[in-house]
Amino acid sequence: MEWIRTETGFEIVCGGETFLKADAECPMVYVGRGEESIYAHRGYYDITDHVTERIPLAVKTVKQAGQDVEVNFSDVLQAVFHLEKDRICVNFQSLDPGVNRFWLRIPAEKEEACYGCGEQFSYFNLRGRNFPLWSSEPGVGRDKKTYLTWECDTADGTGGDYYHTYFPQTTFVSSRHYYFHAETTAYADFDFRNEKYHELQFWAVPETVILERADTFPELMQKITDLLGRVPQMPEWVYDGIIIGVQGGTERSFHLADRSLRNGIQVCGIWCQDWEGKRVTSFGKRLQWDWRWDEKMYPGLPDKIREYREKGIRFLGYTNPYLVQGGQLFQEAEEKGYLAKNPDGSLCLVDFGEFDCGIPDLTDPEAYEWFKNRILKKNMIEFGLSGWMADFGEYLPTDVQLHSGRPAMLEHNHWPALWAKCNYEALKETDTLGKEVIYFMRSGGIGSQKYCTLMWNGDQSVDFTRHDGLPSAIAATLSAGIIGCGISHSDIGGYTSMFENCRTKEVFQRWADMAVFTPVMRTHESNRPETNFQYYDDADTMELLARQVQIHVELKPYLKDAVDEYTRTGLPVQRPLFMHYEEDSRGYDIQNEYLLGRDMLVAPVYESGAEEWSLYLPEDQWVHLWTGEEYRGGDTTVKAPVGQIPVFYRKDSKYRTLFEEIRQKYGC
Amino acid sequence: MEWIRTETGFEIVCGGETFLKADAECPMVYVGRGEESIYAHRGYYDITDHVTERIPLAVKTVKQAGQDVEVNFSDVLQAVFHLEKDRICVNFQSLDPGVNRFWLRIPAEKEEACYGCGEQFSYFNLRGRNFPLWSSEPGVGRDKKTYLTWECDTADGTGGDYYHTYFPQTTFVSSRHYYFHAETTAYADFDFRNEKYHELQFWAVPETVILERADTFPELMQKITDLLGRVPQMPEWVYDGIIIGVQGGTERSFHLADRSLRNGIQVCGIWCQDWEGKRVTSFGKRLQWDWRWDEKMYPGLPDKIREYREKGIRFLGYTNPYLVQGGQLFQEAEEKGYLAKNPDGSLCLVDFGEFDCGIPDLTDPEAYEWFKNRILKKNMIEFGLSGWMADFGEYLPTDVQLHSGRPAMLEHNHWPALWAKCNYEALKETDTLGKEVIYFMRSGGIGSQKYCTLMWNGDQSVDFTRHDGLPSAIAATLSAGIIGCGISHSDIGGYTSMFENCRTKEVFQRWADMAVFTPVMRTHESNRPETNFQYYDDADTMELLARQVQIHVELKPYLKDAVDEYTRTGLPVQRPLFMHYEEDSRGYDIQNEYLLGRDMLVAPVYESGAEEWSLYLPEDQWVHLWTGEEYRGGDTTVKAPVGQIPVFYRKDSKYRTLFEEIRQKYGC
Repeated sequence: MEWIRTETGFEIVCGGETFLKADAECPMVYVGRGEESIYAHRGYYDITDHVTERIPLAVKTVKQAGQDVEVNFSDVLQAVFHLEKDRICVNFQSLDPGVNRFWLRIPAEKEEACYGCGEQFSYFNLRGRNFPLWSSEPGVGRDKKTYLTWECDTADGTGGDYYHTYFPQTTFVSSRHYYFHAETTAYADFDFRNEKYHELQFWAVPETVILERADTFPELMQKITDLLGRVPQMPEWVYDGIIIGVQGGTERSFHLADRSLRNGIQVCGIWCQDWEGKRVTSFGKRLQWDWRWDEKMYPGLPDKIREYREKGIRFLGYTNPYLVQGGQLFQEAEEKGYLAKNPDGSLCLVDFGEFDCGIPDLTDPEAYEWFKNRILKKNMIEFGLSGWMADFGEYLPTDVQLHSGRPAMLEHNHWPALWAKCNYEALKETDTLGKEVIYFMRSGGIGSQKYCTLMWNGDQSVDFTRHDGLPSAIAATLSAGIIGCGISHSDIGGYTSMFENCRTKEVFQRWADMAVFTPVMRTHESNRPETNFQYYDDADTMELLARQVQIHVELKPYLKDAVDEYTRTGLPVQRPLFMHYEEDSRGYDIQNEYLLGRDMLVAPVYESGAEEWSLYLPEDQWVHLWTGEEYRGGDTTVKAPVGQIPVFYRKDSKYRTLFEEIRQKYGC
Repeated sequence: MEWIRTETGFEIVCGGETFLKADAECPMVYVGRGEESIYAHRGYYDITDHVTERIPLAVKTVKQAGQDVEVNFSDVLQAVFHLEKDRICVNFQSLDPGVNRFWLRIPAEKEEACYGCGEQFSYFNLRGRNFPLWSSEPGVGRDKKTYLTWECDTADGTGGDYYHTYFPQTTFVSSRHYYFHAETTAYADFDFRNEKYHELQFWAVPETVILERADTFPELMQKITDLLGRVPQMPEWVYDGIIIGVQGGTERSFHLADRSLRNGIQVCGIWCQDWEGKRVTSFGKRLQWDWRWDEKMYPGLPDKIREYREKGIRFLGYTNPYLVQGGQLFQEAEEKGYLAKNPDGSLCLVDFGEFDCGIPDLTDPEAYEWFKNRILKKNMIEFGLSGWMADFGEYLPTDVQLHSGRPAMLEHNHWPALWAKCNYEALKETDTLGKEVIYFMRSGGIGSQKYCTLMWNGDQSVDFTRHDGLPSAIAATLSAGIIGCGISHSDIGGYTSMFENCRTKEVFQRWADMAVFTPVMRTHESNRPETNFQYYDDADTMELLARQVQIHVELKPYLKDAVDEYTRTGLPVQRPLFMHYEEDSRGYDIQNEYLLGRDMLVAPVYESGAEEWSLYLPEDQWVHLWTGEEYRGGDTTVKAPVGQIPVFYRKDSKYRTLFEEIRQKYGC
C-alpha cells in the first residue's frame, strides 16, 4: 500500500487501485452528533436516529514516520495510518468528546460487489442497499409484500425486514479482493448504495479499522480468519449421522430415536431442547429457562445418556444467556448480584413473551465464571450433554447497567460473541472442545469466528419463501462464511410456524435434500410440533431420510476434509461460486447455490412441485452426482426429484471414487 | 416582539415567551447538503434523502437598524429580522450556493400542540410526528395495519401513509397562539417530535419566514388569512340543495336527477364528471381528458343545461391540468409548444394508469392564458357549466423542464396553487366568481387560500376507517381550515373502492348525516359505481336523503353566515373546539367532532351499527338539536340513529329559532 499526498489530502493505492482517499472534493471522514430513539420489544428494535450534525473533515496536517502516517483531520480527529504491503490499519482518536456519529467512505467501483456484514439472510451481495448492523430477531416473513409478514407486523411488529439479523458484523468482503473490518461493537449502518463509495456509519468512533487485500479470494479468507480466528474441527461423532430434534420427556424422546433407528436412520445425536423442562405460551411450547436437568420430565436421563452413548449416539440439550424469574438459578444469581440492573438500580427483567428473565452480567468476571462453571460445565457437560443449542444473545436492553461500566449500546452487539466465548471456554477448560462437545449458535458478532463451534441459521419460517424460508438459509450460510464463520447448518424444515403457515412434507424433504450437503444434519420439530410436518409421522419420509442420512455419512471423509480445510485456511465449508471461479462474473450474484468444499456444487430446490431445476455451473468439468452425466458449465436444467436435488462434482476431484460409489448406490 | 442579545446569540421574546432563539448550545439554523432520490409512480413519490452535511450555524455578527436586525450566521447565511409588535419576519440569504438543505428550529413547549401543514388526513394535532410536505396522492388505506393498505402496497405501492396529502403547506398554527409560515414551495419536512423544539427542514433556503402571534385563535385566523388570502362567498345556488354526482350521458344523468327530484331531494346541481366523455381502465371508469363537451355521450346538453337552469338547477363538469395524448387539445397545445418537456427535450408524458398525458406548462404565460381562455372560459364557462371539479395538480414530475426555468423540484408543490389561480382568474375575468360558478379542488398549497373557491377532501375510501374513511375527512377539513382554507366538503360516501372494499348503505347514510352540517352537500358514485351503494337505488335512502337535504337547506342562513364570517375574518366554517374554547385543554386533541360556525357542534358517527355516540362538549349552554335537551359540557353519550347524528347548538345563538324549527320538523 502506498501513501500519496495530494493537494488537499491523500490517496492510499496498491497495484493502481485506490483503497482510501481523502480530499476537499471527497472527504474520507465525516463526524457528527445524533440522538437515537430505540423502541425495543422482545428482541426487535425500532431504531431511528436524528442526526443533528454531520461535518466533513478536512486533512489539516500530515506527519510521516516510517510505515506510519499521522493525519490531523480538522482538529477533531487524529488518525494513524499503518501501511503494510497489502494492508492498511487505521487507528482513530476523537479529539471532540461530543462526537457520537462517524462516517467513513471507502472508494467504490460501479460493478463492485460486497458481501458479509455478518449473517445476512436476504441479500448475499450487499451492493445497492444499506445494512443497519444491530443484533436482533430477524423477523418472521421479512418481506413487506408477503401476507405472513403483514400478519406478523400487524399482530406485534415482528415481520422484520431484509437487514434484520441475529448476527451483524462490521466486516465485509469486496469483489475487489479486499476485506474491510472495523473493530467496534457500536451500532453501525453500512451503506452500499452509492456507485462511487461505500459509506460506513458508526455510532462511536471506531478505534481501529483494517483494510487488507489479497490476490485471490482463498488468500483473502486466510487473512480474514488469521485476523478474526477460526474454530477447531468438529467432534468425530457429528459426522456419523443426523442429530434429531425431539422432545417431550425421556419416554417420548428415546422412543422417537428408537423408531428412527428402526427405520434405518443413522442417528448420531438426540437433541432435546426441553431437557430442562418446558412451559406453554401462545407462541407455542417454550422452554424452562433454568438450566438444569428436569428430573420430572426426563426421569432416568443420566442412565439413558450412558446407554445410548454406548451405541454411539450422543445426547444434546439447550441453554441461553438468560435466567427465568422464579427459577433456582435466577435466585442464586440474584443473591450473588450477578444479574444486570436497570438505570434506577432495580433488577433488569427482559420480557420473552409471557415470562420474564434476568440477564447474567457477562461483563462481570465473577458472573461470567459462575455461568460457565455452574451451568455450562457442571449442569451440562458434567451432566453428560455432548452439545447444545446456545440460543439467543440478541436481547441486551440498551439502557442496562453493566459491571464493565461500558454503555449497553456498545455491549449489545458484543453480547453474542461474549456468550460464544463463555461456551467456548467451558469446552476448552473441560478438554471437550473439538473432541466431544459442540454447541450451535444463531447470534454472532466479532469473535464468533473463534468462539462459536457451529453456526445454525436460526429460525427460518417453515416454507420456501425468498426472505425467510429455505433460500434465506443459503444466503445466511454464504454470508457468515465469507467473514470467517465457515461451519453452518440449519433446522431441517425450518422452525417458525405462525398463523396458518405450517411445514409441509415437501418443505421438510427438500430441506433435508439440502442438509445432506451441509456439514451437519439436524431436525427441529418447530415451535408448534402438532401442526407441522414431522418426519417420524410419515413412513415415506422416514425411508427418504434414512437414505439422505446415509449419503451424508458416506460423504464424511469429504465433509471432514472441507471442515479441516476451513480450520487451516479459513475457506468456509459452503462457498460462493466466485471463491474458486473469480473470472466468472455470473457467480458474484448467485446466492441460491453453493460450492460444498472445493469439489461439489449444490443447487437446492425450493419450489413446490418442482420436477426439474435450473442452475448455473461455472466453467469446469462437472459430473452430475445422480446420473454421472458430464457438464462443462453454463446454464442448465436437470431433473430434480425429491431425494435428488442438483449436485455436481468436479471430475478430477480426489474424492471421485467416493462420489461414484454414491451414484452407484443412490443415483439413477 | 423584543430582540435580546445574549452571550453567544439572541432571543426574540414577547410577553415573557420565547419565539426564536439562537445560541451556541441551541443553534437556530443548520445548513447542509443532501442528495435526494425520488421514485415517482402515478402521483406517488418514494423520496429518500442522503444528507451528507449538516452544519450548525453560529451567530457571528449582529447589526441593528431600527426595526430590523441583520445577523450573519457563520459567514454562510445572512438573515434580516424585521420585528413588529406581534410579528417576526425573517429574510434569509444563503452565501454558499452549494447549500441545498436548511433546518430551522423553533422553541417548543412540552404540552404545545400544532396544526396545519396543509390538509392532513390522519392527524390534526401534528405533535409527536414529522410531516414530509410534498404534494402527492394520499394513498388508499393509509394505515400499515389494515389489510386494504397492505393489498394496495403490495399490488402497486399505493397504500400511502399518515402524512401523504394532495395539499401540503409550510404553514402551521401553534397552541401557543402563533402561526408560522415559510414562503417556499421546496420540499419540506416539519418535525414536531422533539419536546424542546420544532425542527423545520427545507430543501432550499426559504426566502422569507414569518411568525406572528395573537391574543386569541380567532384573531390569529384573521392574521393568517390577511397574509394568505380568503376566497369570496359561494354562489347563492350552492346553498339551495345537494349537488348530485351522476354520469353516463344525457339520458342517464338527467333521468337520475329527475328521479331524485321526484323523491323530494332538493337538487341544486347536477355534476357530470364525464361531460367530456370517458374511458375504462382496470381501476374503474376514468374520464376522457380532452376538456370539451362530448356531444356523442351528452347529446343536446346545452338545451338540457338551459332547461334545468330555469328550474334553478345548475350543471357542473370536470377538468384537470393534463391533456390526454391523442386528444384535440393535446394536439393544439403540442403544436403551440405549450406542453412541458423532459430533460432531453422530448415531450414529457405522465402515466395516469393506462393512458398518458401532456402537461400544459402553467409557468409559460402563453400556455397559462391558453388553458384559461381556451378551456376554462370557452369550453366550460361559456359552454354553460356552473362549476366543476378542478381535479389533480399533484403529479408534476421532478425533472420536467419548465418555461419559467425554475427547477421542477420547486414547482412541484407550487403547481396546485398555480392550477387554482388559473381557475380563479377564469371566474374573475368572466365575472362569475362568487356569483355563478364554483370549482372544487383537492390539491393545494400556498395560494389556495385566495384562489380555491371550495376545497373537497379528495378520494376517501368508501368506509369508516380512521386514516382513509369518514373520520379522515373531518381531520382534513379542520387542518385545511386552520391555515386559511375555510370552506371544505367531501364526497358523500367516499370515493375509492379497491379490492373487496365497497360502499355500504350505512356508510353512505352516515356520511350524508355529516354532510348536512358542512357548507356543501355533494354525492359521488365512486370509482366503481356498479359495486358501490348508490342512494338512487334505494327507496329508504332516497327518503332519508330528501330529509337530510331539507335540513341542510333550512340551515342556509346559518351556513351562509358562517361562510360570510370566513370571508371577512378567516374563521373556517368548520372549526376545532379550541377555536372558541381556549381554556378547555380537551379540545386541543379532538379531531372527530367540530364546531360548525360559532353556534353548532357536530359529532359525526363512523361506526357500523352504532345506536348511540359518545362525544365531548366544552363548557357552554348546549341544546341537543334533535331532542331539545340541554347540556352544560363534559363527556356525554346520546342516541344517534341514522339521520340524527349528535348535533348541538348554543342556547343563546341568534339562530335559536331556526334550530328550534328544525327540531320541530325533524327532531324526536
